[in-house]
Amino acid sequence: MSDVKVKVGILGASGYTGAELVRILAHHEASIITLLTADRRAGRPFGEVFPHLAHINLPTMIKIEDADWSTVDLIFCALPHGTTQEVIAGLPDHVKVVDLSADFRLFDPATYQEWYGAEHAAQDLQKEVVYGLTELHREKIKKARVVANPGCYPTPVQLALTPLLESKLVHADDIIIDAKSGVTGAGRSPKEMTLFAEVTEGIHAYGTGGHRHAPEIEQGLAWASGSDVVVNFSPHLMPMSRGILESIYVKMTDGTTAEDIQAALAKRYADEPFVRILPFGVTPQTRHVRGSNYVLMGVVKDRVPGRVIIVAVEDNLVKGASGQAVQNMNVMLGLPETMGLEIEPLFP
Amino acid sequence: MSDVKVKVGILGASGYTGAELVRILAHHEASIITLLTADRRAGRPFGEVFPHLAHINLPTMIKIEDADWSTVDLIFCALPHGTTQEVIAGLPDHVKVVDLSADFRLFDPATYQEWYGAEHAAQDLQKEVVYGLTELHREKIKKARVVANPGCYPTPVQLALTPLLESKLVHADDIIIDAKSGVTGAGRSPKEMTLFAEVTEGIHAYGTGGHRHAPEIEQGLAWASGSDVVVNFSPHLMPMSRGILESIYVKMTDGTTAEDIQAALAKRYADEPFVRILPFGVTPQTRHVRGSNYVLMGVVKDRVPGRVIIVAVEDNLVKGASGQAVQNMNVMLGLPETMGLEIEPLFP
Amino acid sequence: MSDVKVKVGILGASGYTGAELVRILAHHEASIITLLTADRRAGRPFGEVFPHLAHINLPTMIKIEDADWSTVDLIFCALPHGTTQEVIAGLPDHVKVVDLSADFRLFDPATYQEWYGAEHAAQDLQKEVVYGLTELHREKIKKARVVANPGCYPTPVQLALTPLLESKLVHADDIIIDAKSGVTGAGRSPKEMTLFAEVTEGIHAYGTGGHRHAPEIEQGLAWASGSDVVVNFSPHLMPMSRGILESIYVKMTDGTTAEDIQAALAKRYADEPFVRILPFGVTPQTRHVRGSNYVLMGVVKDRVPGRVIIVAVEDNLVKGASGQAVQNMNVMLGLPETMGLEIEPLFP
Amino acid sequence: MSDVKVKVGILGASGYTGAELVRILAHHEASIITLLTADRRAGRPFGEVFPHLAHINLPTMIKIEDADWSTVDLIFCALPHGTTQEVIAGLPDHVKVVDLSADFRLFDPATYQEWYGAEHAAQDLQKEVVYGLTELHREKIKKARVVANPGCYPTPVQLALTPLLESKLVHADDIIIDAKSGVTGAGRSPKEMTLFAEVTEGIHAYGTGGHRHAPEIEQGLAWASGSDVVVNFSPHLMPMSRGILESIYVKMTDGTTAEDIQAALAKRYADEPFVRILPFGVTPQTRHVRGSNYVLMGVVKDRVPGRVIIVAVEDNLVKGASGQAVQNMNVMLGLPETMGLEIEPLFP
Repeated sequence: MSDVKVKVGILGASGYTGAELVRILAHHEASIITLLTADRRAGRPFGEVFPHLAHINLPTMIKIEDADWSTVDLIFCALPHGTTQEVIAGLPDHVKVVDLSADFRLFDPATYQEWYGAEHAAQDLQKEVVYGLTELHREKIKKARVVANPGCYPTPVQLALTPLLESKLVHADDIIIDAKSGVTGAGRSPKEMTLFAEVTEGIHAYGTGGHRHAPEIEQGLAWASGSDVVVNFSPHLMPMSRGILESIYVKMTDGTTAEDIQAALAKRYADEPFVRILPFGVTPQTRHVRGSNYVLMGVVKDRVPGRVIIVAVEDNLVKGASGQAVQNMNVMLGLPETMGLEIEPLFP
Repeated sequence: MSDVKVKVGILGASGYTGAELVRILAHHEASIITLLTADRRAGRPFGEVFPHLAHINLPTMIKIEDADWSTVDLIFCALPHGTTQEVIAGLPDHVKVVDLSADFRLFDPATYQEWYGAEHAAQDLQKEVVYGLTELHREKIKKARVVANPGCYPTPVQLALTPLLESKLVHADDIIIDAKSGVTGAGRSPKEMTLFAEVTEGIHAYGTGGHRHAPEIEQGLAWASGSDVVVNFSPHLMPMSRGILESIYVKMTDGTTAEDIQAALAKRYADEPFVRILPFGVTPQTRHVRGSNYVLMGVVKDRVPGRVIIVAVEDNLVKGASGQAVQNMNVMLGLPETMGLEIEPLFP
Repeated sequence: MSDVKVKVGILGASGYTGAELVRILAHHEASIITLLTADRRAGRPFGEVFPHLAHINLPTMIKIEDADWSTVDLIFCALPHGTTQEVIAGLPDHVKVVDLSADFRLFDPATYQEWYGAEHAAQDLQKEVVYGLTELHREKIKKARVVANPGCYPTPVQLALTPLLESKLVHADDIIIDAKSGVTGAGRSPKEMTLFAEVTEGIHAYGTGGHRHAPEIEQGLAWASGSDVVVNFSPHLMPMSRGILESIYVKMTDGTTAEDIQAALAKRYADEPFVRILPFGVTPQTRHVRGSNYVLMGVVKDRVPGRVIIVAVEDNLVKGASGQAVQNMNVMLGLPETMGLEIEPLFP
Repeated sequence: MSDVKVKVGILGASGYTGAELVRILAHHEASIITLLTADRRAGRPFGEVFPHLAHINLPTMIKIEDADWSTVDLIFCALPHGTTQEVIAGLPDHVKVVDLSADFRLFDPATYQEWYGAEHAAQDLQKEVVYGLTELHREKIKKARVVANPGCYPTPVQLALTPLLESKLVHADDIIIDAKSGVTGAGRSPKEMTLFAEVTEGIHAYGTGGHRHAPEIEQGLAWASGSDVVVNFSPHLMPMSRGILESIYVKMTDGTTAEDIQAALAKRYADEPFVRILPFGVTPQTRHVRGSNYVLMGVVKDRVPGRVIIVAVEDNLVKGASGQAVQNMNVMLGLPETMGLEIEPLFP
């Protein structure tokens, strides 16, 4: 590895995914942060906004319109959904991009418009974007200039079902994803629904049947199964900061057993550093991946004949956002894929 | 109502359901607590074990073998599972019983033996026991001497599916119950898995495919559908003290719409004081029933054609245990069913 | 008690203290809610804003300028600090007022101006206001038209120290109040500092040395001691919805023992329904008063000679706000002081 | 640094401090774990007891009596208090020891006996033990064979007050330490008081006036001040897993200002990698050190003349236990002091 470090910028650095990028990159030996942008907080030191990282030497946050793109080789874009298309379309060609927003995740402009209520503003650029679920699209990511980093919810379920749909072990028309998420998935902007007193000591479903991650999940599963897929995706908001657990209920094809499902997943991910398949019958906890880039999955027999249950967990801010973004950067730059990401989970 | 109060005893008063019974009965104008038993804590004042209720005038807790049954008209039995059969079988005939343990909930001795690993020790008594899901079995409860109070998990799902199975609006062979429970469901005995540091800030599935509430749910749904039922019941442990939320995924029969499902439930429970069906598309939070005897349910359209989602919540210690127990006592004694239970939910 | 119910209004009903007033008044047999105002949420049913109370029959919330004051005998004013003075000053004379804001708590206009940065806008009205710490000012409250309901933090510490300062058992010039509060004290308006992810799993001091409740505490203690008092008041924000615990560190006068302190408090509050002094050496938990109007206090010996520790707890939304407000209403109207407030704490 | 790694053992590896040692040592490039002992869990793989670390290659846990001491150069002893003295006294001389128990922290045998109710069983060994508060005793630790790792509570307060007492900026006879701790400080053994439902959504004082960390604090402050010290130490149990916040209330000597206090601390710790003094008037959060070895401190002016407030935070499992233990190991072995400890805090 050369001594010249890759110069990295973070757009929208004052949110939780921005802070996570800084935390991870702090120990990434082949890169250096040269640009941080924020909107309302421009001019303030990063360590004032995130005191837990105040000891790290970082550039002051500036407004995005004041960015000098010649100072960066690659940017992580953590801007709000909807504002990203024009920013990325306007970047000079030498800048590689990992986009953590939802703006380039849906590859069919009609689907984008249906779910986001506006025409996509960078449809040409969309054509060259690569979907960044690293374990599933690694070869394309190697050559990409712009990578759309997956949504937090779509990551574990695609990892779980893609191999099973590809090998026809489960049916594509009877998929139920009951998801439970920590609150950071909703970002750092103050809203009543994410206040402590509204979230602690309880749980509720939200966006049932209409969450914007549903079409992203369906797109990925359609790629795997070879035809259109419609899923039940039911997210729930939990009193925890980080973590997503997905209980995935599927129907197996004739002759397939739950043990076969576990074996197929174990085989598929045997060499993956960040995906671990637990022994048959054992299920994971979100606590066991907190702060790390791991996805853990367990497979359990269902009492209903012909059915199987897969339980998958991740940290929504790491593998579900900033960790996978760094993983994608590593792949795009030809660096060791685990660089900066060898962080142990924090339990308890 | 006469001035003579019903004399009530609580066996196993030092657990969470015992404390809840005392909390509720404190404002129950037709009864008086005359007996409290505890095992390890016998001889200690109740208010030392539960300081939040220390201001209530109560008998000292004694060992169960020291109980004088002539001092009680009705007992709530909150003993650990497995220890209850012989205690209840040995009670004098004048004592009515609401049993909060699992010992008399399964009416088929073979099923009991399969799930609890021992022969049922009071099979004759079992024949006269009535299953105490009040809204569904009220008429029988009126005449019962011994009522088996339902488990916390089985209560909402039976309330949701019984009317739908009876009227053939949903299929009985494709039922998925993804349940999320607070920690008090596991009781007050110290165990590693319910320590604060093991539960906070995370979620995990447990007992997937093999939880002892599965046969109780299946028994109730079989009563409703008229034939055997096997369900997927997947409980998850949540970082909250109280509350259960069940996301119930079912397949509708031909020609039925999600709106029909909501209408059927709304009609069935229109006159019930403790069951509230929300407007179509609205889902409840566990926080909205905390400390109260309510069950709230919402019905949502599923993206998968032919399917529907029902979300139901309760407080596991109230409608899922001690509240329903008092409701059953009221029915057994011919008292107004809501007596003592007009307690508002505590939010936030 | 006559059958004619007192007509009650709540101004600013869409906040947490508004919801608590509705929860408590739901079982208050001598009053009826005839008016609810809210600003941004005017026109919406109360049960949509607080679904846990949706089963209660209530007037729709209206804008304050649309209120018909002839429909109320007494109002609870839960408006934001600073907006209240002119509203209350403009009410017709027949309307009694319990004001839950901070606007009339400081009786010296200069102190108000120092801490709130603006001249007090209703200084004439201030002269007839009575400070509503019920146990300490009951006789004046009986005759008051406008009562300033105490702040959440000032309530327990004044209950603890007033008798001790009056009887010269402790020194007035060496008082340290280390307070720990739940998040609802900060209200329901979305702010970054009260988001779940900013509050859970941690603690921090805030407003140390400069919290607006300091002058209110000092005012009350000066009344008790007969001369000016300056205190150390150090609040901390805790990951819990409700509850305040105050650890009060004071120096005893010569010859006084910690046991004397406990005895003096026990004697002073022996007949008070809502204040309970624990046996010497026992300290209370906030969990033991949650949802109730109780204040619990314990006294412990300090290792430092001549010092003593008093630990006091309350539910900040009940005795620290809406509960004490109803208690004051009861006193103002000549009703039994505990009416509507016989609500047991909810634990766990 | 040579390629030969230091062979490290962990006695009592199945508790939280054991897991933290493994987490930290996983990235410690100069050492390798060659021995893990556990009592009840002997024979089980470490990854089964702590699934979040199951991907790390580790020796199976064995019983302590089966340990082969020739396989280790240094051991971390995380055994329960009271059981450690004989184990350490019986180790061969080549084994260096960092003891995380309380057994060797009190250097006066009479004090030990007073607080632990039994005669100290290794008084000769005690004489060669060094107290391991690294920043304060570094030179002695360099030459030590056995280091007594400080208690979690005593660490921040000694860091805060030692320089101030040494330079006579504060009085030694008027020290109040109001401490708030997360639950992991109580260990992983199941007890009723650390169950989730007993801890969540509340706070309480415990051990007020009689906590075993009081004499350890007093010992350290006596070293600093040159004469005996008695402190008020009031710990509180908080609903969080990790973290300690100490609000320290002290009296300044004549002519000293709060700003002087901040300046003195800032100067004392300017070159310390793990202690950070915040700008005057700014106070830290426990969240800002979670998972890291940092201690943060802030100094605030007190309203009471002559007094000052210091707020200090640490992660009780890291700087308060396993992190400081590794820091001490580094010092004992002549390694860079920060090796393995460059872990960023995890927020949120």
